Amino acid sequence: MADERNYKIAVIPGDGTGPEVIREGVKVLQAAAGRFGFNLDLNYFDWGGDRYLRTGETIPEGGIDELKKHDAIYLGAIGHPDVKPGILEKDILLRIRFELDQYVNLRPVKLYPGVWTPIKDKGPEDIDFVVVRENTEGLYAGGGCFLRKGTPQEVAIQESVNTRYGVERCIRFAFEYCRKRNKKKKVTLVGKTNVLTYAWNLWERTFYEVAKEYPDIEVDYAHVDATCMWFVKNPEWFDVIVTDNMFGDIITDLGAMIQGGMGIAAGGNINPQGVSMFEPIGGSAPKYTGKNVINPLAAICAGMMMLEHLGEEEAARAIEKAVIKVCRDHLKSMSAGKMGYSTSEVGDLVAKYTEEGV
Amino acid sequence: MADERNYKIAVIPGDGTGPEVIREGVKVLQAAAGRFGFNLDLNYFDWGGDRYLRTGETIPEGGIDELKKHDAIYLGAIGHPDVKPGILEKDILLRIRFELDQYVNLRPVKLYPGVWTPIKDKGPEDIDFVVVRENTEGLYAGGGCFLRKGTPQEVAIQESVNTRYGVERCIRFAFEYCRKRNKKKKVTLVGKTNVLTYAWNLWERTFYEVAKEYPDIEVDYAHVDATCMWFVKNPEWFDVIVTDNMFGDIITDLGAMIQGGMGIAAGGNINPQGVSMFEPIGGSAPKYTGKNVINPLAAICAGMMMLEHLGEEEAARAIEKAVIKVCRDHLKSMSAGKMGYSTSEVGDLVAKYTEEGV
Ligand SMILES: CC(C)[C@H](C(=O)O)[C@@H](O)C(=O)O
Ligand SMILES: CC(C)[C@H](C(=O)O)[C@@H](O)C(=O)O
Repeated sequence: MADERNYKIAVIPGDGTGPEVIREGVKVLQAAAGRFGFNLDLNYFDWGGDRYLRTGETIPEGGIDELKKHDAIYLGAIGHPDVKPGILEKDILLRIRFELDQYVNLRPVKLYPGVWTPIKDKGPEDIDFVVVRENTEGLYAGGGCFLRKGTPQEVAIQESVNTRYGVERCIRFAFEYCRKRNKKKKVTLVGKTNVLTYAWNLWERTFYEVAKEYPDIEVDYAHVDATCMWFVKNPEWFDVIVTDNMFGDIITDLGAMIQGGMGIAAGGNINPQGVSMFEPIGGSAPKYTGKNVINPLAAICAGMMMLEHLGEEEAARAIEKAVIKVCRDHLKSMSAGKMGYSTSEVGDLVAKYTEEGV
Repeated sequence: MADERNYKIAVIPGDGTGPEVIREGVKVLQAAAGRFGFNLDLNYFDWGGDRYLRTGETIPEGGIDELKKHDAIYLGAIGHPDVKPGILEKDILLRIRFELDQYVNLRPVKLYPGVWTPIKDKGPEDIDFVVVRENTEGLYAGGGCFLRKGTPQEVAIQESVNTRYGVERCIRFAFEYCRKRNKKKKVTLVGKTNVLTYAWNLWERTFYEVAKEYPDIEVDYAHVDATCMWFVKNPEWFDVIVTDNMFGDIITDLGAMIQGGMGIAAGGNINPQGVSMFEPIGGSAPKYTGKNVINPLAAICAGMMMLEHLGEEEAARAIEKAVIKVCRDHLKSMSAGKMGYSTSEVGDLVAKYTEEGV
């Protein structure tokens, strides 16, 4: 048992404010480890913009294999003001997602009590759902071509590749997750069946076939455009949403906003049979770097998701309670520089409440 | 001059509540015509679900050529509960957009005084921008294929086709529109350059090239996911947005929500050299059909956009003033059944104020 509860974690603090928020996340994780009697063996990786500018390398040779030796990955943020957008995201973040086959991007959208949401008349009882975003195919496969590039006759094609295999495992994950979650017991497919008749025909057929195996779960379908309206107007309609990579990217950012913004939103890149990666979903926020003002709660919540994934559910619940207490009793705002506390003070508070229990 | 101000309008009331809202729209258009001295020659087309169920036809033979004989098209709504989703949308709505080469979908997002928005702390001074959505290519081109359909090895490909020709004319439209609009003088490209590196590389290159011809206009770029957050949190950042067909579809529905919902949101499908089509952007709302409770303001605003497009700017402004007065002084809500007035009463009020002036 003791052995089993020793977790090897690859930590990639990354760029900008990544290291600052990861520091607080680790503080809280260690507090939980102390209280609940497990051990974290942390290996740090210096991947990111600085290393790239220094060495020209994004992920060094053998880097992906190194990651595979861990039980989970804890990521800060990737993105550097001096590196052309796209390079680090593709060569580090997306590469890890794809090569470790982290086929689900799991994004809880949960408004904690005391957290300000920009939408009217909705509270924590209304905003509590999870988006299961396919994370390894679709438009993110990167397929496409240019024809006659740079001429007036140029054509640029971008392809969305969807496989039965990839779509089915993602949908199945959503149904399993919904059952385990045991709340409204409803899975909503979000797509665009009326226009994208290849991709979404496959998704739709697969969805209703898999659904038959889950007679206890209600199913629903919504177009992606309408879904954005409902996130703002009727977020209480949702329980578990399943969607493709691109639509998932879009709706989860909107979801982050209604749950209080980038200061609090976390996600997991899940391979249920492999190594998963957890991250605050905000960027590297260069303008706040080194100022001790960024909100570390998103990174702390990513750590909480990681513990839940590793089976340390009790520890995860303790962190969540501590986060809720800090949101409700302490923080003035979720935004960088407006919290009323510094980054490290917020980390200290959550760590303290996690250790003591609330 | 008299001759020039005689407009041939193709009216397609369509399905569900389409005919009800178009009736009120026509009432207001005629009021404007009476006051401002132009003439509307209306030809009605019975295209839609009922006709399809009766005859099997969506657009009858020669129908598109008929449309071409008009100065503009005024559309209610397409979509019937007894017809499989996708058929009518593709064979009527999208077909008209494509065959008449209506290459811009123009969507003003403007919160009128007195209209309830679901987002906090924002008023009419904050929500006033326009989305220029490419309307004839991208993922809507419909390209793609299935491989091994129905087997566990199935692959479904969906293609986004983007041409320099199509992208450039759309971007140019956005800059021209921004200059004419003469407000913040800023055009924001909304895309996903960091992941969709074929399509958005073409868009980005074209955008910055065209921008050089408009030194008076500020340019900006935002990822589509972040844009959704900002619509809710900082809508005041935007002036004119230009984006592709799919992203435009998504963000304009979110835009509709923050401007008060489907009861008020209108759009134009524009071919500056051809025949354009104007529509309320909500659906056919089957459950409200025939009850005289649906909000006709979206259809009325579509009519207003049509007059503006036809060059009847004074009449368009008069309708807008009437709409604003009705929103501010009369309507309790923008939602069907909750307005405090019936569909026809709202139409009567706007027509009266348009005729009298406010
Ligand atoms: C940084 C970017 C490549 C990434 C994505 O598009 O997936 C991000 O937006 C996310 O959602 O994790
Ligand atoms: C009905 C549908 C085909 C259409 C679209 O996707 O363009 C609608 O959502 C719109 O935005 O006008």
